[in-house]
Amino acid sequence: MKKIMVTGAAGFVGSNLIDKLLSMGSHVVGIDNLKTGKLVSLEFALRSRNFKFIALDLMTEKSLLVEELKGIDEVYHLSANADVRFGPEDPYRDFNQNTLVTLNLLDAMRIANVNRIFFSSTGSIYGESNVFPTPETVSFPVQTSLYGASKLACEGLIQAFCNTYGMRASIFRFVSVLGPRYSHGHVKDFFDQISLDPRNLKVLGNGFQAKSYVHVNDCVNGMILVSEYQTTPLEIFNIGLDEVCTVRDSVGWIIDEMRAKPIVQYGESDRGWIGDNPIIQLDSSKLRKLGWAPKQTIEESIRATVRYLKDSSS
Amino acid sequence: MKKIMVTGAAGFVGSNLIDKLLSMGSHVVGIDNLKTGKLVSLEFALRSRNFKFIALDLMTEKSLLVEELKGIDEVYHLSANADVRFGPEDPYRDFNQNTLVTLNLLDAMRIANVNRIFFSSTGSIYGESNVFPTPETVSFPVQTSLYGASKLACEGLIQAFCNTYGMRASIFRFVSVLGPRYSHGHVKDFFDQISLDPRNLKVLGNGFQAKSYVHVNDCVNGMILVSEYQTTPLEIFNIGLDEVCTVRDSVGWIIDEMRAKPIVQYGESDRGWIGDNPIIQLDSSKLRKLGWAPKQTIEESIRATVRYLKDSSS
Repeated sequence: MKKIMVTGAAGFVGSNLIDKLLSMGSHVVGIDNLKTGKLVSLEFALRSRNFKFIALDLMTEKSLLVEELKGIDEVYHLSANADVRFGPEDPYRDFNQNTLVTLNLLDAMRIANVNRIFFSSTGSIYGESNVFPTPETVSFPVQTSLYGASKLACEGLIQAFCNTYGMRASIFRFVSVLGPRYSHGHVKDFFDQISLDPRNLKVLGNGFQAKSYVHVNDCVNGMILVSEYQTTPLEIFNIGLDEVCTVRDSVGWIIDEMRAKPIVQYGESDRGWIGDNPIIQLDSSKLRKLGWAPKQTIEESIRATVRYLKDSSS
Repeated sequence: MKKIMVTGAAGFVGSNLIDKLLSMGSHVVGIDNLKTGKLVSLEFALRSRNFKFIALDLMTEKSLLVEELKGIDEVYHLSANADVRFGPEDPYRDFNQNTLVTLNLLDAMRIANVNRIFFSSTGSIYGESNVFPTPETVSFPVQTSLYGASKLACEGLIQAFCNTYGMRASIFRFVSVLGPRYSHGHVKDFFDQISLDPRNLKVLGNGFQAKSYVHVNDCVNGMILVSEYQTTPLEIFNIGLDEVCTVRDSVGWIIDEMRAKPIVQYGESDRGWIGDNPIIQLDSSKLRKLGWAPKQTIEESIRATVRYLKDSSS
């Protein structure tokens, strides 16, 4: 039976992945510093004898990490500062929490002789592409956010470790992920605003930004599919639905699901914040060729996310 | 008159750039920690009243750097660990000396309100491209060395700072640079071997690696040309000759210039070391469109480098 480490274990995608891996019979070691991750996300996992949780900071506790890595077969590295919007406040935050942490993990894996990594990158590294849907092989992009830059640096490090130390890697470029345990992003922002004042909703940007999303279950299934079929040392996969929705579509579904009728006030810019890309639509045909077929539409995912937020706030 | 900061001032490219900038009448502040850079490289510059040298470590002395940046118009950031070959010995070396140092500089510039940067990146970030000559807009590459990964991370940070804080940047992807004050690379390795034992020369790899080079004067002229003509906030330029030579060509010119007749022993691999790319040939037509026309051929540059090494070792 495989022994798998998941970093960012108490986070949104990490905890969903762990539940899935445990249901498949794997042994899982979950790592999290619990700064943004919540132990409640691991309420099912912590009941399993096949799960071990280690509170550990990847930035500062590398030698402890090396010990925990001994005997591990595969690492899913999901720990990150995953919120693109607040990068400008501190240019070191994404760098430390994403890039430096990834280097620490890679080097700990090298020392502990663990050579298989799965990494959650982001469609943000395509910057403002003008090819839609954007394939993995698009023209060398220019970064538009500190978050994207930090993830690009992670990808480069992982690729270099593959070539230098014989590591094997799968890099996943996600669109925004939705579903149970969702923790930040526009659905939560709108949900929080309407919960506080059902009569008013203020939207950053003009609402015509068009983006793709993916349900966390479909996202997790995509990663596990790759873990079963990838035979080459290094592959990069986009994960996202083919469809897009506008922020205005999303607003409609959210207020419908909340039974609210706010006056919606839009901004003027085609971007919600610095580094926001007006269009995100990834070409996931490479993953589809392995048999991936997402089960949830964007509308279903957004509605499911709102229901989760309602349940968890009540 | 422009006030220009050059990091890596006592290094190979930095010191040549400074001599050129001073000859054009600019005021220059040179920064170097003198760990690999040599003060002798600044022997002309230090005689100029328009030049100030500051011994400063970009990794650890950021607040001092902020002070020195006040009133600076432009920064040429050339400080780096520039030797791709020894990355595998310490995965943090390229990361700290290239990526972290660049972030420190960018943030110091942001604090000091200096918004124009010129950056020496590398053709190594194209990894093992299969498009030759390789244009700046080639398909999203995969990194093959820790050195390339560290420079890719720098590029991403610079691009993100442009979009986030209104910085303006020129990114130069160099082929290997040759000429006076050359400090490391295959010409020096071969020169040192033959100086020690004129009868034997051992070459890493089979000698059929085909690479482009550029003379440091042509390289410096390319950067200065861009500084005069670029009007957009961010541009990326390859700098390299159209021609390539094989390692075997280079060996012939080096031993001829040294009047030596060693028995040359080649390796078996098509790569000289981990992360070596068998072919490096960049498409510099974007820079040529600005009027750049290199004056030195590869053969002339290699011979000039050998003559410099002879002069400086005697």
